[in-house]
Amino acid sequence: MNSLRALQKSAGYLHSQKNLFKLNNGAIISGLQNSTKILNNQRTMATTEEPKNDKQKEKSGNIGRDLLMVIAAGGAIGGVLFAYMENKQVQAQSTKDNNYEKYHKMVRKDLPTYKMADVNKHDTEKSIWVTFGVGVYDITPLVPIHPGSKNIMMGAGSSLEPFWEIYAQHKTQQIYEWLETYRIGNLDPKDTFVANNETSGPWANEPIRHAILKPASKQPFNGEPPAEILVEKFLTPQEIFYIRNHLPVPDLEENSHEVEILDENSKKTKTLTMADIKKMPKYTVTATIMCGGNRRSEMHDYKSVKGLYWGKAAVGNAKWSGVKLRDILLSMGVKSNEKQHVIFEGADLDPACNPYGGSIALSKAMDERGDVILAYEMNGQPLTRDHGYPLRVIVPGVVGARSVKWISRISVSDHESDSHWQQNDYKGFSPSTDWDTVDFSKSPAIQNMPVTSAICIPSPGESVKVSKGVIQIKGYAWSGGGNKVVRVDITADGGDNWIVADIIRQGEEQPGKHYGWVIWQAEIPVKKNQKEIEIWSKAVDSNYNVQPETFKNTWNLRGVLSHAYSRIKVKLQH
Amino acid sequence: MNSLRALQKSAGYLHSQKNLFKLNNGAIISGLQNSTKILNNQRTMATTEEPKNDKQKEKSGNIGRDLLMVIAAGGAIGGVLFAYMENKQVQAQSTKDNNYEKYHKMVRKDLPTYKMADVNKHDTEKSIWVTFGVGVYDITPLVPIHPGSKNIMMGAGSSLEPFWEIYAQHKTQQIYEWLETYRIGNLDPKDTFVANNETSGPWANEPIRHAILKPASKQPFNGEPPAEILVEKFLTPQEIFYIRNHLPVPDLEENSHEVEILDENSKKTKTLTMADIKKMPKYTVTATIMCGGNRRSEMHDYKSVKGLYWGKAAVGNAKWSGVKLRDILLSMGVKSNEKQHVIFEGADLDPACNPYGGSIALSKAMDERGDVILAYEMNGQPLTRDHGYPLRVIVPGVVGARSVKWISRISVSDHESDSHWQQNDYKGFSPSTDWDTVDFSKSPAIQNMPVTSAICIPSPGESVKVSKGVIQIKGYAWSGGGNKVVRVDITADGGDNWIVADIIRQGEEQPGKHYGWVIWQAEIPVKKNQKEIEIWSKAVDSNYNVQPETFKNTWNLRGVLSHAYSRIKVKLQH
Repeated sequence: MNSLRALQKSAGYLHSQKNLFKLNNGAIISGLQNSTKILNNQRTMATTEEPKNDKQKEKSGNIGRDLLMVIAAGGAIGGVLFAYMENKQVQAQSTKDNNYEKYHKMVRKDLPTYKMADVNKHDTEKSIWVTFGVGVYDITPLVPIHPGSKNIMMGAGSSLEPFWEIYAQHKTQQIYEWLETYRIGNLDPKDTFVANNETSGPWANEPIRHAILKPASKQPFNGEPPAEILVEKFLTPQEIFYIRNHLPVPDLEENSHEVEILDENSKKTKTLTMADIKKMPKYTVTATIMCGGNRRSEMHDYKSVKGLYWGKAAVGNAKWSGVKLRDILLSMGVKSNEKQHVIFEGADLDPACNPYGGSIALSKAMDERGDVILAYEMNGQPLTRDHGYPLRVIVPGVVGARSVKWISRISVSDHESDSHWQQNDYKGFSPSTDWDTVDFSKSPAIQNMPVTSAICIPSPGESVKVSKGVIQIKGYAWSGGGNKVVRVDITADGGDNWIVADIIRQGEEQPGKHYGWVIWQAEIPVKKNQKEIEIWSKAVDSNYNVQPETFKNTWNLRGVLSHAYSRIKVKLQH
Repeated sequence: MNSLRALQKSAGYLHSQKNLFKLNNGAIISGLQNSTKILNNQRTMATTEEPKNDKQKEKSGNIGRDLLMVIAAGGAIGGVLFAYMENKQVQAQSTKDNNYEKYHKMVRKDLPTYKMADVNKHDTEKSIWVTFGVGVYDITPLVPIHPGSKNIMMGAGSSLEPFWEIYAQHKTQQIYEWLETYRIGNLDPKDTFVANNETSGPWANEPIRHAILKPASKQPFNGEPPAEILVEKFLTPQEIFYIRNHLPVPDLEENSHEVEILDENSKKTKTLTMADIKKMPKYTVTATIMCGGNRRSEMHDYKSVKGLYWGKAAVGNAKWSGVKLRDILLSMGVKSNEKQHVIFEGADLDPACNPYGGSIALSKAMDERGDVILAYEMNGQPLTRDHGYPLRVIVPGVVGARSVKWISRISVSDHESDSHWQQNDYKGFSPSTDWDTVDFSKSPAIQNMPVTSAICIPSPGESVKVSKGVIQIKGYAWSGGGNKVVRVDITADGGDNWIVADIIRQGEEQPGKHYGWVIWQAEIPVKKNQKEIEIWSKAVDSNYNVQPETFKNTWNLRGVLSHAYSRIKVKLQH
């Protein structure tokens, strides 16, 4: 029942998408009726990767098996979804899309081999190359006749797969065949995904990631998807969800992974295997996880800060399933109080073998509405290694840094985590505090995040087509602490006039626990012959807090909490 | 024990005050050791008011008796407080200050009688008149030799009592005698307090109020104290606490007052007398109550809004005691949920006999940390009529409008209050929403308030003395929802440089329930020969939300949520 409800919601969302982008119902998307797959991208990964060592090979086999199950589920889901969308005029399809696999893996010996670097160069409207599986395609002639030309340009010079995860209506034999008519070569198998080239040392065993994730750093890997694609779905697919690693990714096995839990006062301990955890009541929460440094690049562009140069997509929204930390702590006799903390340690270790760690208030963990869980699923799929496989903490409403991945140890303590990331990182300061004067002990560790929004479509600097005197914009908004976004205001004239955006999807209506983001859209009127436009967005939450206007007055040396108005300038095509 | 702890804290606060204002220890404040009274202002009221009718006369008698008890308590408190401050070098004093009463009531038949309007005219340094009790004094020669000359000017042309509530060190025989040497006349008894001149109709039975409360409207009475005096105490004395009435003040008797409680679903009802309520466990919470329109004048000055022209003092912080609403609802079998509401109705009625009303989420009322109480005491005193005597709701962290006074009826309901004030008032809108386009059903009723701060000392336009190259500023900061104020930043150069203010007093450290405000102070360096300075303050709360910069971008037609940066311009005296 839960899945069905979720699907009905997704379907509603796609319907609204359809209206937004005014997709026509012609040949290109008629395949919608035949589409059955949503979640098969991982399969591609399993079939095309070349495991580097025996351990990984074994793992890859496991992933393959897990993914077959996911694909099966995905197929069924797809069937129900589209049946719903088409008023049940079509039947659910077979659970396996043999055509996708066939075309995805099809090497053409009559054609040359290209490196991804070659493909990357063809990223303008004059020459657009893309990859799909092992194929390289020159789709330059396609752009003028494709209804989503604007979106095609986002994939120019890179791989199509992440976009087809979002625009799943492309996954039909008709389109696979049609794409083949643009084939010009084969992709060097080593370049199919962003692989790590290390063969020894701490980074030798990193997972393979989607090419769509733009790295903010490679070791540790930190990457975000294009902002334009992020706001196409209320639930962010795991494949394009931003990755924020502080250390090398541990390689854990579900069968042997354990979590140790300690109440420092009573000295009670508990050790839970994954099997123990999966026997407990399963709880699902829709929550946005946002990096403390999301949108840092905008603050950095005002004045230099130290930290990863994140764009506005170091954030994602997912449905997380697992067990309530509250239930585990209650079973150990822990009682909520306002003084203690819960300390989390991951299995990711620094060179001195210290784990990544962070802590939250015990009262947050014990709050019935706090929804702090140990999650083993994301959007109904097992977690990937990059997202904390086999188990991670999810602390809804709180800075991502406390949602510790690869969770291995949990302690109830009288003090906060003494980790670097709790004590000397993720904290806010006055704009006049610099590296000579900063005293990290003087500021509280970031927990609940402030209200924010970002304009994701169009991109800054883009040339946007004006239709009927308006342009369409789209973005996300979110506030930490379970606070609901109640309004998103848009101005295109420096604040003289404001337009209230339409919030097209938000979380369940539960006062005090709006942990998911909202996607919003607005129509902005433009003047005849206007050549350029600057647009700002600001969100207001249920406490009527609002984003600050400028980075100047909220600047801080670490570039965290970068939540001033989102501002973009674009060119207008009449 | 609780009282003692509170006193120790108060003492600590006064110590810091002493440092801030660098009071010398000479003759004028040596009387500190002899001071014993904190809370005897009400007595003055009881002894000087002229009851207008029998009913009020009876009431006045009751107040007199109650106040004798308060005075007794106040005296004991004062003794402990100052003993603590002086390292127990002095003994606690007698509980009754006969000298205060004597001088306060002393009519001098050899001197003329003046109207308060006469006194009001003498409010500049050239000629300063003040009143104390029934006396009129010309203290012009005192200003150059008084250590708090700046503060004296706040009382120029009005009554001294409210200031002596704050600067209680004046309450010594020595100072009473000394003040008498400046005596020039007697105050017309009718003008001792701000009385209402109506003799019939709905406004005939309004309480008498302190002259210090500057009216934003007289019928209904709405008034606030000078902002400069507001930040002198962590707990705002009831006498100077802003009054926000929507309708005539009901005249209730504790002996006959009842509260009716209804659970609309179960149909269970309960009727509680004040005696029933006082038998229940007593719970005390320190909470700031702020009018939704606090600081409206600043927004109005940017662009006209509809509403009372409030300054920055439509806010106060007090210790409220009563019973937990949660306890009452639990006793009726009510369980918390996210869908229902608790509707409050006061005994104040409009001409159609509809009561003032408002509602909050049931989950707030049921939350153990929500601290929603039915209060019968404020700072240890019974409520005055203007503050809801004999019983009012206190909803900490939430807009003042929901803390319904004279509470008479409480319902647990599936819907919000349908009162005007819940549905068509206290709501926020986009700056481009005007009276032609507004749809009140589209915005949520204000509950938790956003983060705010205000510079209270100095006053805008004031001429401020520079000492050792700096000026001193002081203000308050608060955030709704139980969020703690973690930092207050000050700039005097348009945001190029920021100074972090010292937070000199804040509520108890309880994550998730910082319901009280903070008082902050800062030293602002000024340049040699600088003639004018513009200073801004902004507060940051524990969710790292921050005040917005301008009223332009947060303007709304009702002028609520007026929480942009506090900005003042002052002149500098070198």
